[in-house]
Amino acid sequence: MSDLILNAVGRRVPLEVNGKPQTIFQGVGAYRPTGPKAAPRIPSNADYGTDKRLRSLREALEKCGLRDGMTIGIHHHFRDGDLTVVPLFDTIAEMGFKDITFAPSALFPTHEPLIRHLESGVIHHIEGSMNGPIGRFCTHGRMKGTGILRSHGGRWQAAQDGELKIDIGLIPAPSADSMGNANGVNGPSACGPLGFALTDATFADRVIVLTDHLVPFPNVPWEIPGMLVDYVVEVEKIGIPEKIVSGTTRITKSPTRLLIAEYIAQFIEEAGYLGRSFQAGAGGISLAFVQYMAQRMRAAGVKAPFARGGSTKYLVDLLNEGLIGYILDGQSFDLDGVKSLRDNPKHISTSPFTSYNYHSKGNIAQHVGTAVLGATEVDLQFRANVVSHSDGYLLHGIGGWQNTLDADLTILAFPLFRGRIPIIVEEVTTVCAPGEMIDVVITERGIAVNPLRQDLLDRLKGSSLPIVTIEELRRKALQLCGAPDAPVRDMETPVAIVKWVDGTVLDTVFKVPERE
Amino acid sequence: MSDLILNAVGRRVPLEVNGKPQTIFQGVGAYRPTGPKAAPRIPSNADYGTDKRLRSLREALEKCGLRDGMTIGIHHHFRDGDLTVVPLFDTIAEMGFKDITFAPSALFPTHEPLIRHLESGVIHHIEGSMNGPIGRFCTHGRMKGTGILRSHGGRWQAAQDGELKIDIGLIPAPSADSMGNANGVNGPSACGPLGFALTDATFADRVIVLTDHLVPFPNVPWEIPGMLVDYVVEVEKIGIPEKIVSGTTRITKSPTRLLIAEYIAQFIEEAGYLGRSFQAGAGGISLAFVQYMAQRMRAAGVKAPFARGGSTKYLVDLLNEGLIGYILDGQSFDLDGVKSLRDNPKHISTSPFTSYNYHSKGNIAQHVGTAVLGATEVDLQFRANVVSHSDGYLLHGIGGWQNTLDADLTILAFPLFRGRIPIIVEEVTTVCAPGEMIDVVITERGIAVNPLRQDLLDRLKGSSLPIVTIEELRRKALQLCGAPDAPVRDMETPVAIVKWVDGTVLDTVFKVPERE
Repeated sequence: MSDLILNAVGRRVPLEVNGKPQTIFQGVGAYRPTGPKAAPRIPSNADYGTDKRLRSLREALEKCGLRDGMTIGIHHHFRDGDLTVVPLFDTIAEMGFKDITFAPSALFPTHEPLIRHLESGVIHHIEGSMNGPIGRFCTHGRMKGTGILRSHGGRWQAAQDGELKIDIGLIPAPSADSMGNANGVNGPSACGPLGFALTDATFADRVIVLTDHLVPFPNVPWEIPGMLVDYVVEVEKIGIPEKIVSGTTRITKSPTRLLIAEYIAQFIEEAGYLGRSFQAGAGGISLAFVQYMAQRMRAAGVKAPFARGGSTKYLVDLLNEGLIGYILDGQSFDLDGVKSLRDNPKHISTSPFTSYNYHSKGNIAQHVGTAVLGATEVDLQFRANVVSHSDGYLLHGIGGWQNTLDADLTILAFPLFRGRIPIIVEEVTTVCAPGEMIDVVITERGIAVNPLRQDLLDRLKGSSLPIVTIEELRRKALQLCGAPDAPVRDMETPVAIVKWVDGTVLDTVFKVPERE
Repeated sequence: MSDLILNAVGRRVPLEVNGKPQTIFQGVGAYRPTGPKAAPRIPSNADYGTDKRLRSLREALEKCGLRDGMTIGIHHHFRDGDLTVVPLFDTIAEMGFKDITFAPSALFPTHEPLIRHLESGVIHHIEGSMNGPIGRFCTHGRMKGTGILRSHGGRWQAAQDGELKIDIGLIPAPSADSMGNANGVNGPSACGPLGFALTDATFADRVIVLTDHLVPFPNVPWEIPGMLVDYVVEVEKIGIPEKIVSGTTRITKSPTRLLIAEYIAQFIEEAGYLGRSFQAGAGGISLAFVQYMAQRMRAAGVKAPFARGGSTKYLVDLLNEGLIGYILDGQSFDLDGVKSLRDNPKHISTSPFTSYNYHSKGNIAQHVGTAVLGATEVDLQFRANVVSHSDGYLLHGIGGWQNTLDADLTILAFPLFRGRIPIIVEEVTTVCAPGEMIDVVITERGIAVNPLRQDLLDRLKGSSLPIVTIEELRRKALQLCGAPDAPVRDMETPVAIVKWVDGTVLDTVFKVPERE
């Protein structure tokens, strides 16, 4: 690991990670890529017949030329219901390979067994997202290499720009034909969009489709085109679609959170954003604010041109009601979302390329009116954290969070404290967003508007909403909770870095020593 | 122009064309590309707002940095109804630029006015397709550079492989939003698929969408993703959709051609291909054989998994009847095709990448059961010509013809002679297909099966069809017509080359001196 130097957001970041040089964060929109896109090898039809099936994942990995030190990518559309990642690494371990860089688009609690492969050195490090137990393992400095955290759009950007070279892309697909044309809307394991897998299909040298539902050619729609696929392997079961529904995709019943959701809806209307497009996540507050906003839309007689998913029953209902023109969906958070994507032509699957890639000629995120997101910490400069907690532990992935900050109006919404830990802090533990990206912070005890958004402050003049400064929010939190213990971190030992959407290094996650 | 050397199909081809080294044809499936794909520059969202509109094509060309010697690409979905190509070059001429390489996916009679820009040197040469008057102009050696003829799939392959570097891609789009998301199924100029434009969108450095129907974001479906588009220009009218219907897209009434069509249908059934997928072009014989084959399919109670378009009313009717599972469409040949593509989820738009790219991990063409195509000449080695006539004149583009030869059963069908010129010849004027790609030749006076397809000869034993040898067909034609005059060609002066689907040089078109 190289020396740490200060970047444009005041954080100490390494110039080299896992032996590769890094570009440090230079400010929002400041860094301009100069090179060409990554250029995968040119294949030839002469090497591909019409039937690409092989008998086992192991055979496919062999034919892909798997060897020590390679990088393997996979999508996370099955979320906590994935049945492929752990068997993949069990197979690689059996085959005797090690030092694999694993680049999933996200990980979930079900992937905890990967720790044995991290401990044994089968996996060298993880690029993409880490959470829960694996994040804790990484925070303790126990991963062989340094973790690299990227947003969903950043994963495409990194593969596109040649920063992340995926040797083998594995694509679990709920429906596929023998050519490898694949989608996520049909078959017993239907999970909705497969857009995250398009990164692997497009940029990996070798691509394996794993399916439990083989259909005759042509498999329509081919969200993953078979023209990008090397091998197809049939397995018994790739995922449990019911488990894509995590505990967070229900409307909150907490009075505090419902109050926050009402504030959000009122803020959107008073700020003039009612009837504009919006992004709603799967968190309880997000789901609730959409309901309140929908009531206001009905009352005002306006509809939104589109909503960005993750899709849920709640969004699908609004689409069917005609209150939104389209759902532009990145992933399904429940089975109503899956069904709607399959059957409703106004429910459109998007990929990280169309929605989130910053090294592109624009993307959908730029066109979103309002984005409502969570955070683990926000500081007095409106810088926000979404990956680590105030105790220093890396416990969450970035997801699409950084990418959606490009909305016209970005709102972070959360209770002022969680378990007596304030969310508003002096300085965030890890910077995942520069302060200028955050327009408003909404809590149950006050709403702080970023002073950079004087236009919003002007519009909200005379509002009944509890508009305060971020410093006031901080004071209130301190009064109620006191300051938490400072995290015990080894500030010379990075365990992971956080990339900004342009591939530059925004911050460093430092080691938290294990207690004796 | 460099020396000419013999390639694997026995033709003399140049090693260098327009200053660029060429790879000569080495046999079907023999050449393997070794390099990486073309890598366009990495753009940044920081340079793109949500509204990409400019006031004029001229302004867009200026902002794209147009200069002498650049390459401009465009699609041909409007066919003879295109209203953009001639104004494009009138504008470039006004701007004072010259030596442009023009790379359209096809040209039509309406583009004859380009000759003035070829004469003045605004256009240096054409890569893609030439026909009619422009083909004649080229054959006379009057084009500044050497023409390069490619198939539809070859155009994608060449751009993908870095052989054809498109500096500016122009995309006339029947429907677009201000981000550049575009499709061909909506708006007053709806023309059906826009798949050919995906080559330009994907590989050109700069991309301009021209539209006469601007809609609010998001324009769904976005067959051309706005993430690949630099500028959007509104113009009054981009095309006349009624003119995509050319004279060829009607079922023939000629008894000779109807007999050929009946032979085709009978051959398909007896060869065991009834109920397999098929490709039908827009020619009168193709349209007629589909009707006869459909009758046989109904009688046999079988349906085909899909048919490849160009789509016509005739294919759409079969789709609606349920006799084919899907139409996988590359271009609409009539307005019924446009409407069906818009409204029927089983009518799917394809691009040259999904259907025809040979430097891919497979494509749709490989999955087609039967392809029925025309030809201008076929010789005793079953080599076929589709671009020039026996008088040496280059008069047609390759289109998807070379690509569809990958079908399991490739049938060339035509009357034994046209205007007293035999189609079966000793040696084709220009080789567009090696003999091994052609399985069967069907004429009204006999059917010749390629001896390489002994399996077909075995199956057809005892058939009532007039199975003969290719030599017998040649003799019959000679008896009826006599041998035509040999073409007067300057065999040391290439005017164009014909590429095979893998980018290698298959044959040369030589100059025909102008008569005094």
